Order: sequence, then C-alpha cells, then structure tokens
Amino acid sequence: MEFWFDFGSNYSYLSAMRIEELAHRQGERVQWKPMLLGPIFKSLGWESSPFVLQKEKGAYVWTDMARQCAKHGLAWRKPSVFPRASVLPARLALCAGDEPWVGAFCRDIFTRNFVFDQDIDSVQHVSEALEALGLSASMWIERAVAVSNKDKLRSETERARALGVFGAPTFFVGQEMFWGNDRLEDAFDAARAADAQ
Amino acid sequence: MEFWFDFGSNYSYLSAMRIEELAHRQGERVQWKPMLLGPIFKSLGWESSPFVLQKEKGAYVWTDMARQCAKHGLAWRKPSVFPRASVLPARLALCAGDEPWVGAFCRDIFTRNFVFDQDIDSVQHVSEALEALGLSASMWIERAVAVSNKDKLRSETERARALGVFGAPTFFVGQEMFWGNDRLEDAFDAARAADAQ
Repeated sequence: MEFWFDFGSNYSYLSAMRIEELAHRQGERVQWKPMLLGPIFKSLGWESSPFVLQKEKGAYVWTDMARQCAKHGLAWRKPSVFPRASVLPARLALCAGDEPWVGAFCRDIFTRNFVFDQDIDSVQHVSEALEALGLSASMWIERAVAVSNKDKLRSETERARALGVFGAPTFFVGQEMFWGNDRLEDAFDAARAADAQ
Repeated sequence: MEFWFDFGSNYSYLSAMRIEELAHRQGERVQWKPMLLGPIFKSLGWESSPFVLQKEKGAYVWTDMARQCAKHGLAWRKPSVFPRASVLPARLALCAGDEPWVGAFCRDIFTRNFVFDQDIDSVQHVSEALEALGLSASMWIERAVAVSNKDKLRSETERARALGVFGAPTFFVGQEMFWGNDRLEDAFDAARAADAQ
C-alpha cells in the first residue's frame, strides 16, 4: 500500500502513527510516499490549507484532532504554526524510502510537529531524529539536499497531483485511491481483498 | 442527539439510513433537524457544494459513496442532478419534527434522491412519500408551505450557521459538534458518556 503524506498535515499524523501496526497485523507492506501539499493546494487554486482558508472548518478540525488522538491513544498538542513547512524532512524521507527505519523516522518527525511543537523543517530537528536512530545526520542530510533528490520530490508531488491526490493522507491500493485517515482501515480491507484474488 | 442534515447531501443519506437503528441500540433519541446547505455555503463564500466546486474532490466523492454504501449494505445510484434542491421536503420534515413517522419520511426522501434519482423537491414525490406512510399529503404540504413554517426553516438554517455548522451531516450532543457520517458512532459514544454522568 502506498501512503502519501505531508509532515505538516495533522490527519497524516494520525495515519503515520497507526499504519505500520495495522500493516503488520494484516501482512501488508507500507510504502512511505512523502509529498508537498503546498504545490497541490496551489494547483487547486488554494493559497493555503483548507483548514486555514475555511475558518469554520478550521475551528472544528482542532476539536476533532483532540478527540481522534484520544480515541487512538495518541499524544497531541495543537501546533503553534500551521501548516508547518516540511521540505527538509520530506526530502529525507524520500531518499530513505527503501530503508528499514523510514517509518520510525517519519513517526519521529510527526511527533515533533504534533506533540512537541517543533520546527520540523530545521536541520537541527531532522538531525536529532536521525541521530536518535543511530544514523549519520550529516550523511543523510547531504543525500536529502542533493539536486537529484530535490527534483525527485518535485516530480513525486507532481505525480500525486496527476493521480488525483487533493489532500493527505491518501492511500493507494493498486489504482484505488482512499482519502483521509478515516479510510485507512478500508484501504487495508481493499488490500487484503486484492491479495486474496 | 440532534441530527442536522440536507436532503441533497449524499453523506447525510448515509447517516439518515443508519441513525435510528444505532440510536435504538444505544437507547438514545434522535432529533431530525432539516436545514438548507445552500445559504450556509453562500455564507462561507461558496456558490455551490464543495464537491461541485472542487473537481478532484468531487470525482473522488462518488467512488467513496459507492464504497461506503456497499460497506453499510445500502442501495446507491449516483444522482443525475447534484446537489438537488430540497426545500419542500425540508419544510415538511421541519413541521413534522415531533411526529413518530418523521424518520421514515426522511429515509424515504433520501432514498428517492440517492437510489431512485427522483426530483425530491416536487409536490408529486413528497406526496407519494407521505401517502406511503398513510398520511394526508395535502394537509401536510399545506402545513409545510405555511409562511410561519417557511420562516422557521430559514431561522433553523441560520441557527445551524451560528452554531458553527459548515456541512452535513452534523451531529450535536449538548454543545459538542461532530461533523460527517464518519463521526456518527463517535457522537453516539459521546451521548452515552454524557448519559452516564
């Protein structure tokens, strides 16, 4: 299953913290697919997150997030900046896409944003996340900011847009698209059904 | 629990067909609260449903609806007109709000829209729905189109907007607002928790 996300997206946080446990239980494999929602929202004619542009929905979203985190047993603090820039960790997750620790790295970054209210687009915090995993921060950040990797994040984001992605999280099971943390279980059901065929 | 809905709203259909069975199981009572999303969307600066205005999300919604209906065992046909005008059945459901048959009437109207693809804003189809329940169509339609009831639907819609409603379905448990069919079970959990206090 492909899991398309943006580290700045609060509903992506809910899925990021849950997806590998669900995948493990179901014998599925997760491909972590970082993207940048900013260019996607711009292509839809929005200058920011719909939660910022639509005041009423925005007010509701924070109530909903607190309830959803409580329901799933996840820590939560409303970030003081929303949506947070997420280019550096997205580049990092992209170039580490085949590493066994990519999921752990992503959960660490999401937790920094939505629990510890940290600036996740900084070298300092991305380095801390890498070092916590026993990795060389300087080596991985160098790979992340290589021109070819920067270009790849742009083309991945463009590919998401072309696939019809308009928000995050979005899951793909083959060609089938599922939007929103509320559809994560449905996406796994579809994956299991596809496996059974 | 208050259940705010618009007969033209596809996700309201999912809740309308499920809510009384869930309420019965949990010993809760449902108040059917018809409103008109048109004026609410206008107050948010939208000229139509977000599913019409946002092409990408609109395309996804019909896939999602087919899946959700299959999951809940509900019949489904994508309506040929969306969103359908729903003023007459909304007025009817409002003036029948305390009748024991209001839920059955609402399910019938939703089914006409989202299964039989009928013009639910017509006297003919509203009459058929009433007569199927053994009621006098002419008497109830007369009550529905009385000036005082028309005014009441406007003020109810205005009250929804003032409460922070920005879409449908929306559920209220006391002051707590829950938006979307995906939160119906959570709203019932909150109602049960409130009862237990």
